[in-house]
Amino acid sequence: MEFSSKLLENAVYEMSQLPGIGKRTALRLVLHLLKQPNEQTVKLSMALQNLREDIKFCTSCHNISDVALCEICANPKRDESVVCVVEDIRDVMAIENTNQFNGLYHVLGGKISPMEGVGPNDLTISSLVHKVKQGEVKELIFALSSTMEGDTTNFYIYKQIDGSNVNTSTIARGIAVGDELEYADEVTLGRSIINRIPFENSLKTS
Amino acid sequence: MEFSSKLLENAVYEMSQLPGIGKRTALRLVLHLLKQPNEQTVKLSMALQNLREDIKFCTSCHNISDVALCEICANPKRDESVVCVVEDIRDVMAIENTNQFNGLYHVLGGKISPMEGVGPNDLTISSLVHKVKQGEVKELIFALSSTMEGDTTNFYIYKQIDGSNVNTSTIARGIAVGDELEYADEVTLGRSIINRIPFENSLKTS
Repeated sequence: MEFSSKLLENAVYEMSQLPGIGKRTALRLVLHLLKQPNEQTVKLSMALQNLREDIKFCTSCHNISDVALCEICANPKRDESVVCVVEDIRDVMAIENTNQFNGLYHVLGGKISPMEGVGPNDLTISSLVHKVKQGEVKELIFALSSTMEGDTTNFYIYKQIDGSNVNTSTIARGIAVGDELEYADEVTLGRSIINRIPFENSLKTS
Repeated sequence: MEFSSKLLENAVYEMSQLPGIGKRTALRLVLHLLKQPNEQTVKLSMALQNLREDIKFCTSCHNISDVALCEICANPKRDESVVCVVEDIRDVMAIENTNQFNGLYHVLGGKISPMEGVGPNDLTISSLVHKVKQGEVKELIFALSSTMEGDTTNFYIYKQIDGSNVNTSTIARGIAVGDELEYADEVTLGRSIINRIPFENSLKTS
């Protein structure tokens, strides 16, 4: 792509550094901003810079938060003895949306991935292990995605907390509610048969 | 979507104001920036602000340019007597890429669209009419998209320059090179039959 303006080229280049945004989309977004009042560009760039500079993480669960202890951790009605291990804030939001979980979270900030150069020390694993060893956590729920990296991370944590008096569980994998069996992949269908639950249990679910 | 942080919510909101970027994508982009060094966010926001504040438009063709007269208008090798009327810089870049046009451009900055509140005075039509009335332009090529807005704009300009000694043409519409006839839509196929060209002419095209 050849640009008639260095300023435009630079803006498009920086925009296209975002994941999933190619040069063509970046140009469309930048031209849109040019058509809008100056104010919108200022608002966008200030919002991004403010976030990047003033961002705080909850000292307990490491979720993104504006205060030292996030709303969930500070809520006395939540069950401190159950901790759900997730990758990032999106997973917290997804689980909160279900209204089915009343425990606390622990946000790892990623998964162990040698391919991407992410080791255990880049994540908040030591803080989680410390929390568990203090003995107040009774159950740890692994809710990482079921990829090789997710399974590796689960297993690493599992080994680290070996000897602690804590139950570990993982969220159920199976056919999505409302899905047809014939379109399900074999691995998922296989797992959902192996991990079948008593029929009476399925009646309890709201 | 409920956010645990006002800063995050604000950044996601501003990002989702861009066209084609929903809340979910905006969150993904913002979280990506959070994982990157501070520098990348600064670079992005400075590039956008610099563009928005220092942007200039070519005084002759109204294309985005860093200097008063853009490269194309300033090039003595280009044919000043042929002017191609386009909507925005993307069309200029697309036509330049073909290497088939040696004239100048006139960037309207949009199309007449009562639905979106864009009237003739919001575009650079008067500047184009002035250019044509000076008599140096021999041919005007309409290259707006063939929508109702595009056709309206073409016709408006056509009426405005009525009486000037200028030829007008419009780019050919037809079946794309390499396309199968059976998959073409009827309107395009119909137009390509009505506007058929002598076979010898098709041999000339490189």
